[in-house]
Amino acid sequence: MESGEAHEKVFKEKALKYARLYGGKVGIIPKVPISSLEDFSIWYTPGVAEVSNAIQSNRELSFELTNRWNTIAILTDGSRVLGLGPVGPEASLPVMEGKALIYKYFGGVDAFPLPVRSSSKEEFISVAQSIEPAFGGINLEDIESPKCFEILEVLRNSMEIPVWHDDQQGTAGVVLAALFNAIELTGREIERTNVTLLGAGAANIATARLLIEAGFDPQKIILVDSRGTLHPEREDMDQLMLRNKWKYELALKTNGARVKGGLREALSGSDVLIAASRPGPNVISMEDISAMSKEPIVFLLANPVPEMWPEDAKKAGAAIIATGRSDYPNQVNNSLLFPSIFRGCLDVRARTVSDTMVIEASKELALYAKETGLTEERILPTMVEWEFYPRVAARVGIEAEKEGLARKNLSYSELLESATNAVETSRKTVSRLMESGIIRGLPD
Amino acid sequence: MESGEAHEKVFKEKALKYARLYGGKVGIIPKVPISSLEDFSIWYTPGVAEVSNAIQSNRELSFELTNRWNTIAILTDGSRVLGLGPVGPEASLPVMEGKALIYKYFGGVDAFPLPVRSSSKEEFISVAQSIEPAFGGINLEDIESPKCFEILEVLRNSMEIPVWHDDQQGTAGVVLAALFNAIELTGREIERTNVTLLGAGAANIATARLLIEAGFDPQKIILVDSRGTLHPEREDMDQLMLRNKWKYELALKTNGARVKGGLREALSGSDVLIAASRPGPNVISMEDISAMSKEPIVFLLANPVPEMWPEDAKKAGAAIIATGRSDYPNQVNNSLLFPSIFRGCLDVRARTVSDTMVIEASKELALYAKETGLTEERILPTMVEWEFYPRVAARVGIEAEKEGLARKNLSYSELLESATNAVETSRKTVSRLMESGIIRGLPD
Repeated sequence: MESGEAHEKVFKEKALKYARLYGGKVGIIPKVPISSLEDFSIWYTPGVAEVSNAIQSNRELSFELTNRWNTIAILTDGSRVLGLGPVGPEASLPVMEGKALIYKYFGGVDAFPLPVRSSSKEEFISVAQSIEPAFGGINLEDIESPKCFEILEVLRNSMEIPVWHDDQQGTAGVVLAALFNAIELTGREIERTNVTLLGAGAANIATARLLIEAGFDPQKIILVDSRGTLHPEREDMDQLMLRNKWKYELALKTNGARVKGGLREALSGSDVLIAASRPGPNVISMEDISAMSKEPIVFLLANPVPEMWPEDAKKAGAAIIATGRSDYPNQVNNSLLFPSIFRGCLDVRARTVSDTMVIEASKELALYAKETGLTEERILPTMVEWEFYPRVAARVGIEAEKEGLARKNLSYSELLESATNAVETSRKTVSRLMESGIIRGLPD
Repeated sequence: MESGEAHEKVFKEKALKYARLYGGKVGIIPKVPISSLEDFSIWYTPGVAEVSNAIQSNRELSFELTNRWNTIAILTDGSRVLGLGPVGPEASLPVMEGKALIYKYFGGVDAFPLPVRSSSKEEFISVAQSIEPAFGGINLEDIESPKCFEILEVLRNSMEIPVWHDDQQGTAGVVLAALFNAIELTGREIERTNVTLLGAGAANIATARLLIEAGFDPQKIILVDSRGTLHPEREDMDQLMLRNKWKYELALKTNGARVKGGLREALSGSDVLIAASRPGPNVISMEDISAMSKEPIVFLLANPVPEMWPEDAKKAGAAIIATGRSDYPNQVNNSLLFPSIFRGCLDVRARTVSDTMVIEASKELALYAKETGLTEERILPTMVEWEFYPRVAARVGIEAEKEGLARKNLSYSELLESATNAVETSRKTVSRLMESGIIRGLPD
């Protein structure tokens, strides 16, 4: 643990130093050749008028004749950035830039970091809707709960491009993939598995909803927040109905046994714990884990310090443990999914990203881990095994086509090829620019 | 003329074909090296939290620690795109992409094409203000008159980054540069020169205002629109006061001789004609030009066909002729200025772009043309002589510093060096990507 903290300190020092040195992490690049001044008569006036005319007669052509098809916004109001809280849009920019880097490098997606200043969720929604013509998708990021639920719902229903809130769907998707494999390894069955979720913020609300979509029995799911287990008789149900209908609906639908009390009561006999609550290590005790069923599955997702140290969870009997950290096995890392989710959406010009598309992505991610060697300490691949990104992308694209959500229909092998090309081109671009010194190497 | 039209047809065909082939003109590129997975612990979590913390404690650091310092939005509502009219935001995207390409290639500026859908000018203004945290500047583009005047004025006054409407200030700046040299070549003096402007849209309103700022005598300026000369007794003055205060103010300030009538009356004895009205060639006659003073200066800026053919203006006695076209001498081309205006603004982290900064840019552009050989057919350089961009940028930066509008103070030689590096790096990047086949060459 101490070495983890020391590492983190080094990363932070370097991050600040290099941010100043490089002056940011992403920029704009030409995609077309430029050899003479005459080329600008094609790329700009007078030639470009013809492209505008074509799109004016059919707006859908903006997905074919411009880079809209490959461009998404990483949109945030800076109201809940990492574990830092409401740091504001300016301070969120380096995080959005980092995310854009990952989108490009692992998904070949042109993601533009777009923190905005907004005084209300209505204004934020209005900005998102206004910018639709420039983008093939929107990645919402680091927006506080519960307003993130409403923003996502309104935008998904009103926009003709995929809208994705990574802190909800991304986390839920990776948790689901990890859970598929953990359940398989411990010989369980999805529909008979009892799941306890600690924390009822954006991640766990979305996870609970996705689990239900994926076939988990809502009656066997229990959410626990700072007031204890969620159930239909809780005294704050009226408030929830008004202020957080997503949590309210889960209170009605889950916890079939009407378990009351706190985490300990919920965990009694539970097969799975998914904690996405607050930084530990003293949020969950060894006794809590001991109260679970045999060979329990324990996900401890708080950052930077998990709700309890994995070593302690192990001692208390956990069979499979996952965290949000890269220095422990089984990192539940959104970066495993979001680049390929959007790669797949963009390649078929999807109109939305459905829950079933996310579930397909989770299945493919889980399958890749299985095919390449499943163990208790490897229920998910890591980002270096980048071959899974095109596979997940192709699966997402195929599912969009099946559901009638695609503007463009390609075969699985075509999708796999285009996604592979996109990712390889990104990696090659970075290599070439590093070799030629345009991207300078790190100092030291 | 016919060969010009045939050329244009070829450019348009190629533009449509290549738009489909390349799928857009600009994308996102990493600026930092990526060698291992560990690098993402610096560029993303956990390291990036430190960069966010630093900016949270001082928002101005967003100009040092992210790419905000080099990023601008090319923002439009698509209400007046090229000469095509209100084609809408989607159809404006290829134009904005072309502009982004020029920003990068000639200015090293990361310009993101951002057409937005907005139902009112208030909504447009609100969107522009919302996105401020992501950008170091805003280039407004292709917004109809008169709302463009109000939008620019409100945004300039409310934002802490430079806001520039290229159809106003960009055109005005290049016209002014061309006029400086035309006046010198014909032995005139600025304060004694009579100027007639035909058309009172965004370009000419802005040009008239900039001419006055630059020392031209407002009494010797006459604007002519579809209702004739502008003067304080015109019957539509009440309407103008309500609907277009910028034009109203010019009606009060210009035309000291109270010339009434149309273009012919205005041109009688005039030294300069600046036409930015509607496509010709029959908008202005040879007799109109003959009515002007000796050795008149005639700018015919309508696109794609100038208000009269330059050959006819020549026959009617025009000493110096400029158009908006690349196939005639003296192209008044906004691309000569906007990349370096923003290069200069960004390098000093300017809070705004003042009229005097624009005038300095015009002077430097004119001076470059003079130093490299002034003739009647060369009052402006062309884009291939790219050495002038860094010079103009440095001049803009120095002027911002003088006026107390800069966040960062650099010497002229430092500014020249950084601007030169920025432009050279852009050109080198395109070359490397073309050499390595990542940017494919044009077919044929």
